[in-house]
Formats: sequence, structure tokens, C-alpha cells
Amino acid sequence: MIYLDNAATTKMDERCVEVIRKYGVDRFFNPSALYGEALKVANDIKASRTAIARSIGAQREEIIFTASGSEADNLAMLCSVKSKKGKVIVGGGEHSAVYACANELSNRGYDVVFAPVDRYGKVKLGELESIVDDQVVLVSIMHVSNETGAINDIKKIAELVKAKSPRALVHSDGVQAYGKLPINVKSLGVDMYSISAHKVHGPKGLGALYVKKGLYLRPIIFGGGQEGGVRSATENVTSIMALGAITEIDSKVVMKKYQNYKALQRYAIDRLTKALPDCLINTDVDNSVGNIISLSLADMRGEVVVHCMEDMGVIVGTGSACSAGKATKRIPKALGIDQRYADGMLRISFDEYSTQADVDTCVDCLVKVVENLKNYQRK
Amino acid sequence: MIYLDNAATTKMDERCVEVIRKYGVDRFFNPSALYGEALKVANDIKASRTAIARSIGAQREEIIFTASGSEADNLAMLCSVKSKKGKVIVGGGEHSAVYACANELSNRGYDVVFAPVDRYGKVKLGELESIVDDQVVLVSIMHVSNETGAINDIKKIAELVKAKSPRALVHSDGVQAYGKLPINVKSLGVDMYSISAHKVHGPKGLGALYVKKGLYLRPIIFGGGQEGGVRSATENVTSIMALGAITEIDSKVVMKKYQNYKALQRYAIDRLTKALPDCLINTDVDNSVGNIISLSLADMRGEVVVHCMEDMGVIVGTGSACSAGKATKRIPKALGIDQRYADGMLRISFDEYSTQADVDTCVDCLVKVVENLKNYQRK
Repeated sequence: MIYLDNAATTKMDERCVEVIRKYGVDRFFNPSALYGEALKVANDIKASRTAIARSIGAQREEIIFTASGSEADNLAMLCSVKSKKGKVIVGGGEHSAVYACANELSNRGYDVVFAPVDRYGKVKLGELESIVDDQVVLVSIMHVSNETGAINDIKKIAELVKAKSPRALVHSDGVQAYGKLPINVKSLGVDMYSISAHKVHGPKGLGALYVKKGLYLRPIIFGGGQEGGVRSATENVTSIMALGAITEIDSKVVMKKYQNYKALQRYAIDRLTKALPDCLINTDVDNSVGNIISLSLADMRGEVVVHCMEDMGVIVGTGSACSAGKATKRIPKALGIDQRYADGMLRISFDEYSTQADVDTCVDCLVKVVENLKNYQRK
Repeated sequence: MIYLDNAATTKMDERCVEVIRKYGVDRFFNPSALYGEALKVANDIKASRTAIARSIGAQREEIIFTASGSEADNLAMLCSVKSKKGKVIVGGGEHSAVYACANELSNRGYDVVFAPVDRYGKVKLGELESIVDDQVVLVSIMHVSNETGAINDIKKIAELVKAKSPRALVHSDGVQAYGKLPINVKSLGVDMYSISAHKVHGPKGLGALYVKKGLYLRPIIFGGGQEGGVRSATENVTSIMALGAITEIDSKVVMKKYQNYKALQRYAIDRLTKALPDCLINTDVDNSVGNIISLSLADMRGEVVVHCMEDMGVIVGTGSACSAGKATKRIPKALGIDQRYADGMLRISFDEYSTQADVDTCVDCLVKVVENLKNYQRK
């Protein structure tokens, strides 16, 4: 079985299992307790927090652990803004967590505006600039599109937002950027940045939010006061330690990964466009992380193609798993994809172990599946 | 090392590690994706949800997974009440998650009243009855005190609340009751009931809320719509499967455990009162789960005693780990503990593997520690 839906989730690194055993079975103490063994665990969490912070250019105190990327997005969007009204700008192709929070903010009386994205899912800077004014209190634009891999110029976005509305907070959902691009939240200039463990071979059930020093959030979970009082609950020690253990701090290593991905992506797009000249490629190879390719097939349902592909031993996605069950077509609409192609979206996403041979098998299968489905339709 | 702080957290069951490996590494698929492998995982989660539901007498659809008992309490208290005002009644000895939510509800304009508890941490039914009226919209009273092990008569409480205010929702934090007492949420008559995995040898980072069929909550985390739209995020598959694997559905087995605990508790209290005649026992042996004993030493700081005990190889707690770092003395005050004893609270809590020999060692160490500290104070 070839698994090419790594943007939905990744296989957990074997090292995580050992760490989970260590902190679940051997050193299972509650880090909030007062004895020495508990304090040791609390110190280990500190070290893990430091490593994760460093991997995005942040300080330890700027990291709040959550149970998911979605929770990190919720914390950023629903617990940061002080003013009870104002304008909130959100990218037009955001993940459902940010999109749903935007709708909630609208229900709470904020003026929510969606910034249009281009054909490849990148926020159009010119249009964004025209909707930012001094009423803006919050902007949330993803670093990398989970659908197409498009990279937004967050640094430029943060600059233009802060120039027009100095009080505005800038959040970026970095779930699909983390581990795929070198990231430095300080040079990006954001106030908040979300990541998720299970997209980078870590455990499911762990996310984190970078919160710039000096910015105080309201609690998302009230209780014992963990995570600086913002997100109470006994720390998920095993998962925090597991993510820390596999976190890549060296941005050169991440850059090397990025380049490997890009080479594989170029190879795959080249093969796809030759093998399936009718398909639309929704990923701009010149502005995307290399691990994601979005394509659209005419007059086909992505779900059907996915099932046929799986029968042939290749797992690909239809786009965000989080909205896979829903027929909202929010994303194809945002990308301006023609109705004929809107149902036929597929997402191929690699991890660092994916190979050209995997791509070859995937493309060969896809060609057969498309042929079979066309023949079936003709009958 | 003898570990007697199981009310703070427990050692993860070895079986959980294997389940975590299985669903983290081998079958790591995102249950929201559309291919067959993902659907299989979604079905496995269903089975785990069913098992956990059955273990408290609920239906599968009535269980919402959260990242902690604290989050389950937050979901129950902050996302259930429809009316924007009204009276909220909370037990006087609640866990910090419920206590902090009560304060938040007070900030939001609800009339929050704390129901007094007796010397052993049990809510006084007579006083509760006198403060319940038809303005009550929410009552949250823990099933078992995390500090003393006291059992509240939740069935009677739910009846008296519903009789006086039929619209009132009744929540109970069952984190310390789960696995220690046979539980049937239907016969308890509650609308919501919280549990936590790491208190019963499951992984940290997983809780669940029972929500009675027909009761609709507002979302606590917005996004992809998982958990019936109430708590969005990729499911914590590994932890959900791990808890399901170790969940005890048979209430007879839980009853047997309860009896074993009670025998050990009686033995321990008997030894403690003989060995340390000056100490206060804050646990009512005739109305408590058997795995917890709270005691108070005069003129001593619990934290110091805990450190000395650890040096001798026995780990005990000072009470709730979640508020261990705070000197609020909320709980000793609620129990009406004399100032001389308020700083010297200790909690000894067993798991099913604790033995009389462990108790003997613990009591012997405690006697020595108390002697040493008294000698030290005299100097």
C-alpha cells in the first residue's frame, strides 16, 4: 500500500512509541504534583517546549500546548481580541477550524471579511490590502494551504496589516507549513502561529500555539491553571515529550527536506500533466510546499476515484479530511474551479519517505482509474 | 518506590502502549478521510465509544471525547445552558476545573452559588435543597471528591433539583468515581457526566463527556465538525482506542474492585489513627470510594511531608495536583479544617495493585517523618 495522503495525517514515528511508553508507563507522574519525580517530568516538558519553540524561532514561554491544531486556531481566534467589535479578515481558503471560528466571530458581532485567493489558493495581496483598514482587530491567514500547498507571504501580510491597523493581531495557521518549510515566527512578524503534531509524524491529539511575548489570551479551558492559565488540564505528557523528541530544530535540515519535496513534486506534476492532459493542476509549483499536489478531474467524483485508487493499492485524498464528508464545495469555489471539475478534486501528499517509484505507481493507477471510469460512464 | 498518588494520575496500562502503536504506526489513518482504511479506523472508534458508553450505562451517541476531564467539565458548564441568566449551583469542594468555570459563569452574569459541604467533603443535601429554586439553570456537583473520596448522592441531588427547577441541567464531574464505583448515568439521572482516562490507567490527554440524548451543546472547539460538531479536531485515535481497550464494562468487576479498595482503606485508616492519634482523617470511611484517604497533620506543611516521604521511597500527594502549586486553601476552608491543620493536608490514593504491605510501609514512613519534623521544629 502506497500512502499519499500525508497532509491528512502521517504515520507516527516509531521513536514516539518509545517516548510514550517511557512517560506513560515508567515516568507517568503528574507534572503538577509536588514531589521530585513529578518535578523531573515538569522539567522534561520544559525541555520539550524549548525544542518545539526553537523549531519555529520562538521562546519557550511563547508556546501553549493544545490538543490539536484546531484548538490552537480556536484559541488564537476566539481568545485574543480585546475589543468587542471590529473587522476580522480571514483568508478565503482557510482550514475549517479557522473558517468556523470566523463564522463564530461573525455571530458574535464582528465584521468578518474573507480575503480572496487566486487560482492556486494564495491570498491576493492587492485585494487584501484594499480591505485592510484601521478597524481591523484580527487577521488570520494560513501559511500554507492544506488544499493546494500554496505559500502565503505572511511576512508581507503582517507588515501591511500592522501598517494600516497597528492594534490588529495577526495569526497564521502553520499546520501545513510546519516541517515543510523553515519557519521563524519572529521574521514572519505574526502574533500567533498554530502547529499540529500528527502532520509531522507526531501523535494525534497535540497541537501548539505560538503566542508572542506580551500578548495575553483569555482561557480556552478553565481549571487548574496549566499552560499559563490559558489552557487548563493535566499536561498530555506523553504526546508533548513525543513531539519534542522528533522535532527538527535545524532549519537547514528542514530546507533540505523542502528541496527534496520540491524535486518530487516537479516530477509528479510533470508526469501527471503528460499522462492526464485534461486534468487541472491546482498547485502552483513556483509557490508551494513540495509535499502537496492538488488536481481536478473533469466530470468525476473525487471520492469514487479515491476508492478505485485504494483498490489498486494507492491511498490519496480528496482534499482536507476535516471537510471530506461535506459537499460544501467551499474550496473549489474559492479557487474559481469550473463546475465540471469541482467534484473531481484530488490531493496527493507526500512524506519524506515518498519516492519517484511511488509517484510512478500513483500516476499509472490514476490513468487506469480515469480510463475505467470514463468507459463506465460511456456504457 | 511505592506510588500512592493515584488520584493525581495513574501508571498507563501496558496494553495501552500496544494499542497506541497499532493506531499510531500501523493504522494511523485519519478517520475523517474517505478511503476504506480510514473508514475502518472510524468504525474502530465507534466500537471504543460504545464500550466507554456502556461502562457508564450510556449509549454510544451520548459520548463526546475531549482532551481531558477538565475540558469535559468546561464543555458541560460553559456550552450547555441556553438562558443568558439564572442561578448556577456548584459544590463547595469541586475540582478546580468546575470551580474555575463557575467563576467564569459568574463573570458572565450568572448568579453562582456554592453548595456547602460537610466535614468530609460531601454536599449537605438539606442546605442544597434550601438554595435550589426555579431560577436554577445548571447544577454541577462532583460524584466523588478528588480530595477526600466522599461520595455525593447524585441521584437524590438530580431529583431534588429537577423537582424544583425542571429546566435545570445537572452535571456531575465523575473523574474520581469512574472505575472506582459502578456508574449508571441513567439511574443517576444526570444530564452530563465527565470522565478522564489517565485516572484509570489510560493515557493522559483524553476525557469524555456523557451528554444525555436530546441535549444539544454549543461547540467548545469550532472546525471540521468532529464529535457531533461540538468538539472539532482530528480524533485522538490512539488514546480513544487505548481507553476503549482497558475499559471495564462489567459493573460486577467494578463492584469487586470497590470492595477491595474499601478493605484496604479501612485497614489504612485503622493503622493511621493508631500510629498518628493527633492526625485528622478527612475521609468518611462509611461514605467514600476506597482508593482515597485524606488526612491532616497539625503544624506541618504537606509539601514538606511529601518530600520527606519521597526520600524514604513513598509517594503521596498533598491533595489535587491541579491546585498543588497554589496556596488558596479553598478545600481546607470548605471542609472547615482548623487553621493548625490546613497546611498539613495529605492525600493517600491507591490503585488496584496497592497492597497492605504498601500501606504498612507508608504509615511507618509517615510516623518517622512526623517524628523527625517535630524534632526539627523543637530545635
